[in-house]
Amino acid sequence: MQINAQPVRGTKDFLPHEMQVRDAVQKIIVDMYKSFGFSHIQAPMMEDISRLDKSDGGENLALIFKILKRGQKLDLTKPELTENDLTDMGLRYDLTVPLARYYANNRHLLPRPFKALHMDRVFRAERPQKGRYREFYQCDIDILGDASIAAEKELIYVTSQAILAIGFRDFKIRINDRRLLADMVLSSGFTEKEVPSVCIVFDKLDKIGLHGVREELLDKGFIPSVIENFMGFLSHPKFGSLDFAKKYARTEQVVADLREVINESNKLAHGRYSVVFDPSLVRGQGYYTGMVFEISCGQYASSVGGGGRYDKMVGKELGEDVPAVGFSIGFERICDVLTEHPEIFNPNADIKKLVLIYKETDNFAAVITQAEKLRRLGFWVNMQRRAKKLGKQLDNLMADGYEYSFIFDEYTEPKKLEKKTY
Amino acid sequence: MQINAQPVRGTKDFLPHEMQVRDAVQKIIVDMYKSFGFSHIQAPMMEDISRLDKSDGGENLALIFKILKRGQKLDLTKPELTENDLTDMGLRYDLTVPLARYYANNRHLLPRPFKALHMDRVFRAERPQKGRYREFYQCDIDILGDASIAAEKELIYVTSQAILAIGFRDFKIRINDRRLLADMVLSSGFTEKEVPSVCIVFDKLDKIGLHGVREELLDKGFIPSVIENFMGFLSHPKFGSLDFAKKYARTEQVVADLREVINESNKLAHGRYSVVFDPSLVRGQGYYTGMVFEISCGQYASSVGGGGRYDKMVGKELGEDVPAVGFSIGFERICDVLTEHPEIFNPNADIKKLVLIYKETDNFAAVITQAEKLRRLGFWVNMQRRAKKLGKQLDNLMADGYEYSFIFDEYTEPKKLEKKTY
Repeated sequence: MQINAQPVRGTKDFLPHEMQVRDAVQKIIVDMYKSFGFSHIQAPMMEDISRLDKSDGGENLALIFKILKRGQKLDLTKPELTENDLTDMGLRYDLTVPLARYYANNRHLLPRPFKALHMDRVFRAERPQKGRYREFYQCDIDILGDASIAAEKELIYVTSQAILAIGFRDFKIRINDRRLLADMVLSSGFTEKEVPSVCIVFDKLDKIGLHGVREELLDKGFIPSVIENFMGFLSHPKFGSLDFAKKYARTEQVVADLREVINESNKLAHGRYSVVFDPSLVRGQGYYTGMVFEISCGQYASSVGGGGRYDKMVGKELGEDVPAVGFSIGFERICDVLTEHPEIFNPNADIKKLVLIYKETDNFAAVITQAEKLRRLGFWVNMQRRAKKLGKQLDNLMADGYEYSFIFDEYTEPKKLEKKTY
Repeated sequence: MQINAQPVRGTKDFLPHEMQVRDAVQKIIVDMYKSFGFSHIQAPMMEDISRLDKSDGGENLALIFKILKRGQKLDLTKPELTENDLTDMGLRYDLTVPLARYYANNRHLLPRPFKALHMDRVFRAERPQKGRYREFYQCDIDILGDASIAAEKELIYVTSQAILAIGFRDFKIRINDRRLLADMVLSSGFTEKEVPSVCIVFDKLDKIGLHGVREELLDKGFIPSVIENFMGFLSHPKFGSLDFAKKYARTEQVVADLREVINESNKLAHGRYSVVFDPSLVRGQGYYTGMVFEISCGQYASSVGGGGRYDKMVGKELGEDVPAVGFSIGFERICDVLTEHPEIFNPNADIKKLVLIYKETDNFAAVITQAEKLRRLGFWVNMQRRAKKLGKQLDNLMADGYEYSFIFDEYTEPKKLEKKTY
């Protein structure tokens, strides 16, 4: 007798009421994206381990689930075995690496620019904690083959429409540019080579504060005077304004583009959300080359989505650069918030759930015929044999979200269920 | 420069036009099942390797993708390493093993009987061949907690409605009972212990014929006279009739139940499909305990679905038997058939796809506002910057399924696209 029927650590069984939220949110997002001309695609969850290992996924590279070789390919007698001897594939840790491969593999069959919608599972061997899963959905839209900032504007607009359609208001999209970030780091006196390392520390500003950033940079052995220059930027009263950013920008166009994207996006927001410059926004992945963005939903969640431009990534697969920009919605975070806050969202708003009660002695074909009549009236019809205690049975069904009943051979039309009818 | 951007062997990138079919078929099936009161659930793709290894999955057990242990749990210095030392989890090979675990884990939160809809990816390390993938979707409905044949009738009816809704006609559901199969094998003189081994050979009757079955049984060393008795059953002119089956059945009720399920199902079919007794139907998995079924779609596919009763499987997880019966639709096979036969099914029947052409100099907010007006008219609106050769651009879009265009600042209403308009 096996007692532990729990899912593997860090993963989750989704119950019917949770799936109702997930299905409804997925439908809203997918329908919205499709209605703006994004093409739904699907790529395998398994990828070559070498592709994943060589990808620019930052700390995600340490979190790859690797798949054991099979059959004769697996030689356990070899001396000094390494992980590389044992695995040939891994589970993807995001949807961007597979998208770049997908585009390189199928580009001759895809329109250009290609607007992709990719919503599927990814896997990360994270230390399990609340709200972090080892298997989870990502929901990305990407535009490949468009170098202009029209792509950023479109992604920000369309993603915002999806978030609005779910029911969120007053969310904030923070936006920065990786090049501007590098300019600030370089202006402080760090070298080009030091930029990624400084950015990793800087990315924690939210969590560890200015003081923490200074400490970590000192710990890493950077020159104290350079660190102080950098601190001077961060604590400058105008830090956060584009006019200030212009002073350290090596390319004015970067600032002008940010300004245009922010202004036009805010115009289209009509006050329902806001788009703001945030010079401290980094985003973890190493593959971003231009603008980066992140959505936060004030009272509910610090981040419900993010993305950015990654013009060099497809080139790694294709040998020829293809400009690309993507925006990802944090599907799991949003579903968690909606499950905790049912006041935001009712997944059953358009559904009338009915239970059709029949007796074991009733003719099954006649029961089905009745069910079909009720389905044609727009009900979802769950056929259930009458239990010994009908009242309790109906009360339980109400708890499962059933609002109507029809007792076969007794009722002539559906009745609204009421608690303790019997 | 990396040239090989293909997906890993045995897996597939789904292109936009293939995803349109998949999405549309999935929606039809899922909506149908939900409208009959089945609850959508989701379980992780990874399961404990011991759970998978101990499951009753027949030849699928040899096809499990195993996941390498991580961190300190992986000790490569241990002498005489075995696969068990290296893996702690595997990718599920079907949805039934996870469903049994899911039910055991969550039963106190689920209605009884529980009607589950489970549609998700599974993984098998099969030798790649046409129409067989290493990652593929299964689409199952199961009724747990109902020992009566009302469950079989309901699953057959509801699954048939889904297949009809997709557009198939004249399909055939073959049905048998594992107990009846055992009775026939035992009546021939085989022992109880030999039944599974005989059934594995018998399952190949379709492919290798009577002669092949005899040869394989002889090869396996069974007693020739017993094999001849068995051949006598298979070549009997009345083999295939329930009256004949009654002669070797140890329990008359098994035959009476089959007769009732077949008769009532045919009555409800109204000639659109048929349900027939097939005493040679086995179904591979070891966990079936009662009726088994399989759907074939004559000219298109030998099998587009199957299932059966497995009353002992949940008990392995729970320590207490729960009657269960399931029916699985062969989603991949169906999508392959529909992609090859577009005359059966048009995934875009309800969709009006429009391209909104704008110039780089146009105001983006004004373009978006126009797109929203068109979306309110029911169009899916893909915004595209005008290419140098507009005629070619529009022709390409038509090839991608776009039927309407709207040129910003020129048109006042959408125009139907025509080949070589320009």
